[in-house]
This record gives sequence, C-alpha cells and structure tokens, in this order.
Amino acid sequence: MRRDRLLLATTLTLVFTADLYFVLLPKLQDFRQAGGPGCVCARGNDSLPRQGGLVSPRLSNSTDSLQDSAESELDDGGSKLDRLFDHPLYNIQTPVLGPEERLLQAEQLVAYYQKKVSRWERHMEMYNEAAAASNITVPKHKVTFDPEVSWLKFHLGINRYSLYSRQDPAVGQLLRDMHDLTIISADYTQDEKALKGACDCEQVVKPSGHHLKLALKMNDFGKAMFKPMRQQRDEVTSEDVFYFVDFQRHNAEIAAFHLDRILDFRRVPPVVGRLVNITGEVLLATHNQDLRNVFFTSPAKNTCFFAKCLYVCKTEYAVCGKPDTLEGSLSTYLPGLSQAPRVSIASPWIRSYTFEGRKDWEVNPFFCDTIKQMYPYNSGNRLLNIIDMSIFDFLMGNMDRHHYELFTKFGDEGFLLHFDNARGFGRPSEDVMSILAPLSQCCMIKRSTLMRLRLLSRERYRLSDVMRESLWGDPLRPVLTEPHLLALDRRLKRVLEVVRGCVRELGEEQVVTTDYARSTDPPWTSTVAGEGAQR
Amino acid sequence: MRRDRLLLATTLTLVFTADLYFVLLPKLQDFRQAGGPGCVCARGNDSLPRQGGLVSPRLSNSTDSLQDSAESELDDGGSKLDRLFDHPLYNIQTPVLGPEERLLQAEQLVAYYQKKVSRWERHMEMYNEAAAASNITVPKHKVTFDPEVSWLKFHLGINRYSLYSRQDPAVGQLLRDMHDLTIISADYTQDEKALKGACDCEQVVKPSGHHLKLALKMNDFGKAMFKPMRQQRDEVTSEDVFYFVDFQRHNAEIAAFHLDRILDFRRVPPVVGRLVNITGEVLLATHNQDLRNVFFTSPAKNTCFFAKCLYVCKTEYAVCGKPDTLEGSLSTYLPGLSQAPRVSIASPWIRSYTFEGRKDWEVNPFFCDTIKQMYPYNSGNRLLNIIDMSIFDFLMGNMDRHHYELFTKFGDEGFLLHFDNARGFGRPSEDVMSILAPLSQCCMIKRSTLMRLRLLSRERYRLSDVMRESLWGDPLRPVLTEPHLLALDRRLKRVLEVVRGCVRELGEEQVVTTDYARSTDPPWTSTVAGEGAQR
Repeated sequence: MRRDRLLLATTLTLVFTADLYFVLLPKLQDFRQAGGPGCVCARGNDSLPRQGGLVSPRLSNSTDSLQDSAESELDDGGSKLDRLFDHPLYNIQTPVLGPEERLLQAEQLVAYYQKKVSRWERHMEMYNEAAAASNITVPKHKVTFDPEVSWLKFHLGINRYSLYSRQDPAVGQLLRDMHDLTIISADYTQDEKALKGACDCEQVVKPSGHHLKLALKMNDFGKAMFKPMRQQRDEVTSEDVFYFVDFQRHNAEIAAFHLDRILDFRRVPPVVGRLVNITGEVLLATHNQDLRNVFFTSPAKNTCFFAKCLYVCKTEYAVCGKPDTLEGSLSTYLPGLSQAPRVSIASPWIRSYTFEGRKDWEVNPFFCDTIKQMYPYNSGNRLLNIIDMSIFDFLMGNMDRHHYELFTKFGDEGFLLHFDNARGFGRPSEDVMSILAPLSQCCMIKRSTLMRLRLLSRERYRLSDVMRESLWGDPLRPVLTEPHLLALDRRLKRVLEVVRGCVRELGEEQVVTTDYARSTDPPWTSTVAGEGAQR
Repeated sequence: MRRDRLLLATTLTLVFTADLYFVLLPKLQDFRQAGGPGCVCARGNDSLPRQGGLVSPRLSNSTDSLQDSAESELDDGGSKLDRLFDHPLYNIQTPVLGPEERLLQAEQLVAYYQKKVSRWERHMEMYNEAAAASNITVPKHKVTFDPEVSWLKFHLGINRYSLYSRQDPAVGQLLRDMHDLTIISADYTQDEKALKGACDCEQVVKPSGHHLKLALKMNDFGKAMFKPMRQQRDEVTSEDVFYFVDFQRHNAEIAAFHLDRILDFRRVPPVVGRLVNITGEVLLATHNQDLRNVFFTSPAKNTCFFAKCLYVCKTEYAVCGKPDTLEGSLSTYLPGLSQAPRVSIASPWIRSYTFEGRKDWEVNPFFCDTIKQMYPYNSGNRLLNIIDMSIFDFLMGNMDRHHYELFTKFGDEGFLLHFDNARGFGRPSEDVMSILAPLSQCCMIKRSTLMRLRLLSRERYRLSDVMRESLWGDPLRPVLTEPHLLALDRRLKRVLEVVRGCVRELGEEQVVTTDYARSTDPPWTSTVAGEGAQR
C-alpha cells in the first residue's frame, strides 16, 4: 500500500506541475503579449524539460524552457516517433512493481507451460503414429520450451497499469517472433468452437460467417490469433453496411495496436502483419478435420477457405491466397483464462444490434448522470477508462465496442483491454461522433490523456505522422492509406473541440480529472457478481 | 405439314444461294486476283442483294453486287443496327403460322386472364377492407384488363420458331410498358416461395441468398421479374469466385436480351432496365408480410431489403436504394405453366456444382460422340440448338447454364429458351473457352447461325457497335462498359476460329449443318418422360 501512496503522490505532483506549466504559463504569456526575436508562440505547450533519460518534472518559466517550446514547432526532420517517445510525458516511470501488481507469477507460469509442452509432445507422437498408419505425411516440428521466449516475457510483464511497459524489449521481440517463427499448428478459436458450426443468429442482424479467424501456434509455443485480409487497403465500406456486419479488417487490428501504443494506453495485445502460406501453414498444419474441410481450390487455382455454418455454406465469404500466400494480422494471445481470469462487461454505451432499436444513451441526454450514480462507474477510474476507450475508438472509427474486458486480479481499478479492433478504419471520410458519447455526455477526461492528445495535435508530434512512421515498421506496410492517416488528425481535433466545449460549459476543474483517483469501494471479489449481473 | 415443306425448301434454297455467293464467288475472285479501280476486296462477304423490303435471294456475280460488297466495308456513319436488321439475312420471312405453330390460342387466353383479373379485384377488395380495419393505408390502383395490352400480344406472338418475330411492334411497346407502367404489387417469385425461407443447400457450394429477385405486377396486369443491381458496372468479379456463387447482374439480363436479338435467336423474353422506388413500388405495394419484414433502413438512411433464410440472416447481401431508388432489370414473364407447360432439361455440358468434381465432358475427349448417339440429341436440331446456346453463353461469358427449357407444345424441335442470363458479363478480360465445349467438341454449327456470326464480325455490322447502339435504347444506359462490349468482338473471333479449326479438320460439309433438319423421332408426348429421367 505504501507503494500506492508513493505512486499517487508522484502522479499528483507531476500532474500539478504539468498543469501549472501548460495552463498557467501560457495564460501568463498571453497576458504579456510579448515574444523574443525568433520566438514562435506555440499554442498549447506540452513539453516538459528533461534531465537525462529520467523525468524529473520541475516548474520552470525560464527563457530556456520557452526557447525549447518555441523551437519545438519547427520540424527538424528527425523521427517524430522517437521524439514522441522521448517526450517527458512518455517517460513517467512506473514504480517498481510488487508481486500483487503483476498479473502472473513467473515460477507457476513456467511450470504450467512446461506441463503443456509435455502434453503437446505426447499428443504429437500419437498423432504422428496415427498419420503414419494412414500413410499421411505430416510436417514435423521440433518444439522446445524456453523460459526466455518473448511471448512468455510479455505475459510476465503484464501489470496493473498496462499490458506492457514502454521500453519493454520483449514487445519488439514478440512482434518479430510472431512474424518469423514457424507455425506448427492451426485451429479454430475457442469462439468458433463454441458455436460448433452453428451461425450465431439470435438476432436477425447478427453477423454470420464473417469470422474467419484462426488460432496459430508457433514453434516457441507462442499463440497468435490470425485474421486474414478481407478487404483491400483502399476499399471503403459502403455507408449502408451496419457496423456489426462490416468486414473485420486485418490492417485495422495492426493499426489499432500502434495507435493504442502511441496514445500510451498500452491496452492492445501486440499485433503484427504476416504473409501466411495458408496451404503449408494452415491446411497442412492443422489437426482439425473440420478446418481442413473448408479448404478448396478456386477457379483461379488459388487455395481458399471459408466459414461454415450448420445450415449454410459460405463460399461467398471465402478468402483466397495467391496462390497460397495470404496477408493477415497476428495478435498475440493473452494468458489463458485459467491463469489470468478476465471479466467481460457490456459497455453502458453499447449500441442496439438490431435495425430499429435505440439504446437509452442515444435518446436520453442525462444518460451519463445515471451512469455516474451506478456502480462501478460511481467511483474510481472506470468511467474515465471508458472515456479513454471511446477516444481510442473514435479516432479509428470503431463502432463495434459492445463489451469491454478487464483482468479480475486488478479489481475495479484495472485497465480495460482494448480488444478486437478489426472493425476500425472503415470509412476515412466519416467521423462517427456518437462513438465519443461517453466523453461528450459525461464531459470528463483524464488529465494525462488530454495532455497526450494535445501533444499529438501539435506539428512536432502530429498523430498522422507518428502513426505513419510507426506503421512503416510493420511487414505489411503500408498498413493504412493516407486518407485513414489524415482522418486521425481531423478526429483528434474534434476530440479536443469536444473537451473545449465541456470546459467552456463546466469549467476545467470539473472536466479535466486527476488520474488515479482512489476507489473507496469494496474489493473486487465482492464486485464481480455485481458486474456480472449487469451483463 | 405442307407449310413445313415449303419452309424447308425456302431455307435450303436460301442457304444454297448464300453458300454459292459467299464461298464460291470469293474463291473465284481470289483466283482472278484482279479488282476494278476503287474496289476494296472484302474478306467474307455476307451481304445478299435486296429487292424492296422483302428478301428475294438471287445468285449474282455482277459488278453491281460486287460493288455493293466493296462499299459495304466502308462505314457510312449510319446506324449499324438498322443496317444489320435491314440485311437480307435478318429478313427471311417466317411463313404464315398455323394454329398448331402458335403457343397459345387468343380466345382461351383472354378468357383466362379476364377470370384472373376478376379474382384479383375481389382479392383487393377484401385486402383493402382488412387494411382499413387495421387503419393501414394501402395505395389503390385501378386495374383494367385490355386484350390489346403489349404483354398479351407478346404472349400470343410466341410460336414454334421464336419468342417474338423481328418486326413485332408489341416487343418495343412491352419494353416501354414495363418501364413506364405503375407497379401495383410485388412478391417473391415462385422459386423463392418454394424454398419457404430455407436456403437451398443440398450441395455445400450452392448459392444461398444471392437471389433477391421479385415478381412485380403492373397495372395492365403484366408481370415482370425484377433483379436489383448488386454490382457496379465497372466492378469485375474476382477470379476466385465460382460461377455459381457469383452475383446476379441486372445489366447482364438486359444485355443478354439485346445480344440474343442481335444474334437473331429471339429466345430471351424481353428485358428492360428501370429505376424502381423500392419503398413505394415494392414495400408499400406488396401484400406479403414476409417480404415486408426483410426491409430496413440502413445507417445511411437508405431503404434496403435482404434475402432471408431460415437459419441465417442475410444483411450482408442487402441491396439498398438511394434513398429509395434502385436500378434493376425487368424481365417479362412467359405465359404461366398451366397455359404453356415447359420442360427443364439438364444440359449435357452441365458443370460440376462442387469444388472438386469434374463432369464427363471435361475429361472425355469423345464426349460428343456419345451424346450424338443419345436421344434426343441423335436427330433433329436439339444439339445444334445447344451449340447456338453455347455460342450465346460464350459471347457473354455465362458459365451458369445448367439447365435449358423448352415449351412442351413444340416437341423435340422446339427452340431452347435462353433464360436466366444474370451471371453473364462478369469478367471482360477472360474468354472461358470451356463454355464453347458443345461447339468445339461436336464440331457442328447451323449454317444460318454461322452466316450471322460472320456478318457480325465485319466492320459494317461489328457486334460491339450494334450492341452499343442497341443498349443505348435502354433507360439504364450505358448498360455495359466498353471492355465488355469489346470482349464481344474478341470472343466472336474465337468462335469463328473454332469453326475454322473444325472445318480444317473435318471439312465444311461435316461441320456447317443445314438448318431445320427434320426429326424422325416419335412425338414429344412419349419423350418427355425420357428427358425427365435424364435430369
């Protein structure tokens, strides 16, 4: 608990300093109406003076720091992404973590996976014997379990603040590994298996067969979810398509990971693009006969596979390699639910998944007032986290955020996972303002989030530029077309406009909220049931 | 029977004359190697000398007619379509028809339809009363039955030679009426009703939900099948899409009618394009609650409707107006099966409607020899008619001709209906040579068909030009993009190449067959069962 207090104190100090620096100082400057020769007056100055690699915020209104902010608007042509990640706002250190603040304990996890590898090896021995008996040649892969593998490091790095830390070298290694390593098996995901071939058709408009995602296992025993390319980069989803029947876009998954990292949320599990040989790496790698059965050769002699439902056949939805090679996104798996249970909660701003229906939030202008009174939104950061998520979704135009998930271990104060982003980046010309409803209706935002958004709206750190640069590192570059990148800047402006509108109406104090407010609620154990009931 | 003989004699004389004129004369000319001043030597001369409006073929090698053929290659800028339809080949008169050679008897048909109109009026009275009781306002339309309406004239004009005669003014009027008249009701087609909401999924790859066709009734009591636009004119179907899950294209339906008329087959029921208000003319006009239930408003506020199957919901396949207006093709209905029974027969060259399957014709080089021995292909014109149809399908790239239909009344010698052409015109860059298998494997073609094809390959009558001109008359012009029009010329060349190859191998006598060979088979009544068994 001491660590918590220390963290709280550090954060409050930092936020207070930054507030003084960004709000009071510019006002003072405006008041003076004076600038030195060559001084370009930057609107909104979000740079903190740095000392070495560590942040040591200090209140300063010396010419020195002003000069720094003045020059900052001139683009020196260097890497904007490096500049962003070097910025003090992106270098606030997380305090040393106690065991309770980490999601997993190393020893237990390693033991668990060693057991799983042994089981896999036994299973493969039996499978290979059976295959040999049936005269089927099966590619054999050596699997060795190494406690130093990147995916395990990523799992062990998950803590109460985020999925990974900013400088964690395991994340870069994990992206490279997901791209490079041999795929040793492919299967349907648990979701698909749960459906058992039945189309999920409770509601007349539920999607049915758009999901062609697969679980791939690598030879380091890492697992990734594969979403194949369904749409060309420059194809724009028709305006008549409902968000819930829209294609899942592999490039949206990749771009969402980068966007989330750039926004410094770090709540999206790492995603990388990969060219997959669907014959060698899926058809021949799977041990699931059902999956094998949905493969076919197209009239153009390409290898394809389709989604199969009990009563319909989905060749119309087939995806095809060229002739075997298919682009896709690989999202790393989180630790299994047995190791790290998660809870899935319907968003208060969930949309109606029917043609006609309207949800309360769409018609009730006082919706947020009700929500603010309700557990778990009546205290702590939950509502602010949802607002963070709505900003993230608005920037990429994702309307399909019906549920959010969090790790049960971190209780009510845990961060929200920004899962399943494949329906973002559909229409670059459109800004779906209703996605921002949590922000615009509640008129609240974390100060730290707002500061980063302001930073990203500046020329020196422009969101579209840092995104372009970040995405250039992905093997499937260019991941997004220019219209999608430029839409990010336009939407960011609109987010800041909404915040300005709120501040005008309610005052900054009411709107811009200090992070890490303490929850006064009972511990998580007693709250899961409450949230479960809400679903 | 006398009329038959007369027709046979006329045709034979004409064909003989033309043969002499087109084959012997050019050879003689080549032999002389001489031409008068200004004489451009045309390759292949298909023009017959004319006298007035009627054809009176005469054998002539005078300079006069040569001059005519020489000038004929110079485009005088007039209408190529008029020129084509003025050509003697398109002016062979059908002899006066006896009652047995007409599909329907006027008095019976008029009486039948008068009864149907009365029934409709009674039904509408009840429906309107019920609607008034439920406080629903239903648009009221006055329906009057006029024995002079165009669709009835079209029905009465169907005879043993074709669906309509070349100069029949009823066809032009019918096209205008289908476009202009008020739509008084809309419903699913009988096919859709037979499915009762179940997807037709006997085979894993059968299409399921691509069919959004509707039956529309006009206020002159005429009926048309409406196929809405699913694909933009310039969209090209992916090479990976199987022909049987390809979109149905409304513009292909329209273009197929024009192509069939230009080829002088006249076996496609008239089709016209129309902008339909799907709210006013479908949603409000239908009395079918099931149909009403598949209508919805899209996120872009457009009116849309979708295909519904029992176990799945097909919003992904929805078509939308803008906001209510939707392009579509209207194909006139043939007389009902109770009035004019038809038989549907699987084509010997049917494709495998599975992923892997191969049909006999695809692997057996002697397939046609077997077919030639089999009833009903062992005598008469049936095989030649199938070859006609394969040329028609090849020109538009339609791979989906699994069955053909004919009127039972005209027996084995009846013409084949060229129904359901919406899967043509998918990929303009591709020539699917296997569609031509009946021609290339049997090496037979009707002389009259070949003569018209040769004519259409000439600059003066170029197929793409006459098609462009003909399609310009449709309200949805341009119906086809230029690549599709130009593909027609390229494919026509390939047809003629195949014929030339056959002639080289087997000799003209074997390949180019005299039309109207008499069937020596038992009458139709005893043959339907045999053909039914083949299905």
